[in-house]
Amino acid sequence: MPHIALPEGIPGIRSLFEYRPETAQPLLELAEVLLRGDHTLSRGERELIASYVSRLNACTFCEMTHSAFAALQLDEDWALVDAVKTDPDTAAVSPKLRALLAVAAKVQQGGLAVTEADVTAAREQGATDVEIHDTVLIAAAFCMFNRYVDGLATVTPADPAAYLPRARILVEHGYLAPVPYPAVQPSATED
Amino acid sequence: MPHIALPEGIPGIRSLFEYRPETAQPLLELAEVLLRGDHTLSRGERELIASYVSRLNACTFCEMTHSAFAALQLDEDWALVDAVKTDPDTAAVSPKLRALLAVAAKVQQGGLAVTEADVTAAREQGATDVEIHDTVLIAAAFCMFNRYVDGLATVTPADPAAYLPRARILVEHGYLAPVPYPAVQPSATED
Repeated sequence: MPHIALPEGIPGIRSLFEYRPETAQPLLELAEVLLRGDHTLSRGERELIASYVSRLNACTFCEMTHSAFAALQLDEDWALVDAVKTDPDTAAVSPKLRALLAVAAKVQQGGLAVTEADVTAAREQGATDVEIHDTVLIAAAFCMFNRYVDGLATVTPADPAAYLPRARILVEHGYLAPVPYPAVQPSATED
Repeated sequence: MPHIALPEGIPGIRSLFEYRPETAQPLLELAEVLLRGDHTLSRGERELIASYVSRLNACTFCEMTHSAFAALQLDEDWALVDAVKTDPDTAAVSPKLRALLAVAAKVQQGGLAVTEADVTAAREQGATDVEIHDTVLIAAAFCMFNRYVDGLATVTPADPAAYLPRARILVEHGYLAPVPYPAVQPSATED
């Protein structure tokens, strides 16, 4: 049960966005720029970083949400998404993305954990400064989103299928599109 | 030295805002709403939460920045700011703010660390749902800002006085006001 009185029937961060639209707007704008803006990393790759950091922070709602966002933008390759979250070192991603995932894992531990060697390793695999910057900020942002979602004990649907309707809207229309509530039913088992 | 090529002569997060204005805008809007918007917690109290979480994350730039923002909005009571960061349980703040600082410390550890008992303790001291919500989000946001600033190894002026010119601008004009660069000189020792 959430720690505060949130709108009922809306899971996870969406209940917080409804509760406090003043903070929802910049948070959604940040997600849109970071995860969907024009970039040399694909939208699917950036969502992989988000889902991986959410797994490291044990935030099930964000992990399942962004795993769905990633899979739907990576040819529905759910196995790849699972592999990245389980062990990015052996997942079938590019060496550049693997090195960026390692940077993200350091950010999850703390900003001071990121070393010059971590950044050099990413650069040696072809990562640009903007890619390094955005990887650090995506990982840092999910250290915020994950804490926000779990720190207020929002509702987390257990069934992965419950995340698909919202994921399909996101992939088509982006983070800033209005969501017809309830887009995800806490008790839903099918799309 | 920063991990990526940032504009020179600008310290901390301001160098990142200059480097990537697309992400700067929502980040600054978030800070403005959370730390300066109309609220039952004063601006000084909210900046105390920010500086305390930054101390817990060992992010010197954010700690010194938001300590200055707090002190200038709390009758220049620098001793109080230091006391809160050192031990909020004995600092001369209201019982409500003390309980909210305890919630913020749990958020810093991780979202799942926040218990119903933590929230109940804050509510028993008069905290409202919005105050609890915003405390969680401020603490979570600084877990992002701190990682962003240190994860890219931005420049951190050592002298607390170097943070004052920017702090005076902030207190008067807010987070969204244009900053005349360099507002804080890495080598400055006086205002």
